[in-house]
Amino acid sequence: MKVYMDNSATTQMDKAVLKAMLPYFNKQYGNASSLHQMGREARKALEKARSDIAKTINADPEEIIFTSGGTESDNLALKGVAAANQGKHIITSKIEHPAIMSSCNTLSKQGYKITYLNVDSCGIVDLKQLEKEITKDTILVSIMAANNEMGAIQPIEDISEICKKHEVLFHTDAVQAFTKVPIDVKELNIDLMSISSHKIHGPKGIGALFVKKGTKIKRQMDGGGHEFKLRAGTENVASAVGFAVAANLDPKVKQIKELQEELIKRIEYDIKDIKLNGPRKQRLCNNVNFSFKFIEGEALLMLLDQKGICISTGSACASKSLEPSHVLISMGIDPVTSHGSIRFSLSKFNTRRELDYVVRNLKEVVEKLRRMSPFKGDKDIKIKEKEWEC
Amino acid sequence: MKVYMDNSATTQMDKAVLKAMLPYFNKQYGNASSLHQMGREARKALEKARSDIAKTINADPEEIIFTSGGTESDNLALKGVAAANQGKHIITSKIEHPAIMSSCNTLSKQGYKITYLNVDSCGIVDLKQLEKEITKDTILVSIMAANNEMGAIQPIEDISEICKKHEVLFHTDAVQAFTKVPIDVKELNIDLMSISSHKIHGPKGIGALFVKKGTKIKRQMDGGGHEFKLRAGTENVASAVGFAVAANLDPKVKQIKELQEELIKRIEYDIKDIKLNGPRKQRLCNNVNFSFKFIEGEALLMLLDQKGICISTGSACASKSLEPSHVLISMGIDPVTSHGSIRFSLSKFNTRRELDYVVRNLKEVVEKLRRMSPFKGDKDIKIKEKEWEC
Repeated sequence: MKVYMDNSATTQMDKAVLKAMLPYFNKQYGNASSLHQMGREARKALEKARSDIAKTINADPEEIIFTSGGTESDNLALKGVAAANQGKHIITSKIEHPAIMSSCNTLSKQGYKITYLNVDSCGIVDLKQLEKEITKDTILVSIMAANNEMGAIQPIEDISEICKKHEVLFHTDAVQAFTKVPIDVKELNIDLMSISSHKIHGPKGIGALFVKKGTKIKRQMDGGGHEFKLRAGTENVASAVGFAVAANLDPKVKQIKELQEELIKRIEYDIKDIKLNGPRKQRLCNNVNFSFKFIEGEALLMLLDQKGICISTGSACASKSLEPSHVLISMGIDPVTSHGSIRFSLSKFNTRRELDYVVRNLKEVVEKLRRMSPFKGDKDIKIKEKEWEC
Repeated sequence: MKVYMDNSATTQMDKAVLKAMLPYFNKQYGNASSLHQMGREARKALEKARSDIAKTINADPEEIIFTSGGTESDNLALKGVAAANQGKHIITSKIEHPAIMSSCNTLSKQGYKITYLNVDSCGIVDLKQLEKEITKDTILVSIMAANNEMGAIQPIEDISEICKKHEVLFHTDAVQAFTKVPIDVKELNIDLMSISSHKIHGPKGIGALFVKKGTKIKRQMDGGGHEFKLRAGTENVASAVGFAVAANLDPKVKQIKELQEELIKRIEYDIKDIKLNGPRKQRLCNNVNFSFKFIEGEALLMLLDQKGICISTGSACASKSLEPSHVLISMGIDPVTSHGSIRFSLSKFNTRRELDYVVRNLKEVVEKLRRMSPFKGDKDIKIKEKEWEC
């Protein structure tokens, strides 16, 4: 049996998405910036895609800037706002995606002061600290809508409110949350928001940045006047069309949530000495992240892989790193336990039969690894249970 | 009849390209950075694509950095080299693509001195000026391999030699030249080269930057450690696979060149008061750019469009601008004549029957426009014939 449960890394493209894209590869293949009929047809498709995506978050079409993906959207948001606004202070959190962390690092080398907010043991950012850290020099707060590793949904409504009170721009990386958590950019008063296509059964290589009308931002990709002069480069029409279809598919949140709850329940029932990472309630419908005492997440991943089960130890974007997860460490989890963590990320394509197969094999593999674990019985790596209850 | 002759703007995807891409949309859809089997399969496909592209220019696979397209490649080359090297002077030409021009403009605002080399009346850069302008502060020379508007192939071998002599890095934007002009990066001693997929019957939204081993360059897209830490963002596997297939298709240069020569000959035979822009010999096989006295290129474009003929007035990336082409102006062509220019860009899919149709309609449309032209007989806009012979 083959089971794919790494949907936070990337997803299977939906058939409806592919069907919608096909005509734009070799029939309506015009350049959306060309003035002739083929160009105008491409433009029309592109603008419909923009409008269809805008509707899903209650934005206006001209507030949607197509990019090559979530990483580019995050780079544009942070560096673009930094370049266009006075002030040298940016606030983010300790559990952001590498695209945010690394952009902040670059800005820090350019003289910006970056404040990384703490999170509690459930992975929720500290709102009191946020309010305290804002100064007159603060230009931007960037906090993700939901975490990619352990699924914590952040209180973006409260964060936005604090930002508005202090007249600071608010950006949220909603790459994991998009379609899974309802987001109305007007109601939540969000200034900038990153979204991506390949996390929601759309094509890879396309994303968007929502930029609220009037927000000061400088483009980072220089060239032609594409995307309202905020992102140069020939418009990727087929992928934009696919992205729009994906954004409007039924996300089947309830169906996925049921599977998630079942998976958590069964793992907790079947396997001892484990802990769910991240909150129980304020959690993305598709994320299941567990720490297993006495074993390495990577070994677990490899043995499950041999059974045809695709999962990950955390972010795919940091998969080659040997460092423990910066997200789990920020939640107060010790490095050894953090190394014993794996993430199952579900999609609408997963079934109960797959779940049965996963739980059965996980139990077997965990037992096998623990039998040969050198850590077994080591008191120092004991999981601090109380701190973890979310 | 419908005739597409705007292939310098974008091309029809080849069927072989689409066929190769399809499995990576909803079968082998893994994230190439995931460690499990689906991830490893995706990685294998990505690395094969990288290697297949590298071979076409005699590069090593690890010298190919996938980007979202030619514009991003140009941005990365210029800004990445500027950020990683000491020295504040960059040399480019007056006829570069907007992606280069605009990146230079940004760098100029950051304190870099940019020298824009002159071109002669055929659009070839001035090598003597290049040699004269290089100083100890010069870090990079960026000259396109072939021009997108009027097809002039630049003497990149000579340019590269001058750069090597003075120990200055050499970047070439080969977006239009790639596959049409043989380029061996080792033999030509090129340090950085931008290429794009959708100009060669591959998908939109993917390109690459060749970066010679050992070249100092700083990534511009921050995030995960993708693309040898030179470009973050989830790898666009399907598009990379498509790009590689496109790069290895028979470019049918001879077939296209024959059509080009026929089109030039017939237009010059059938229509008076016109001039071919750009060189006759040192010219891309698919570019035909003419100035028509007494008329506006845009009016010509519109009337041909009504006949189902898709062409452009110049670069699609600058199509919305009302400014005369900076390329033609740099060649000494006056603004009014420059406004009377159109570009036919051919592909292997064009036929002789299409050519007949185009010439017949072009003649008719030119005559129609000239009958109502307010400029007719205006001596000031007379084309300076001698200066133009290439």
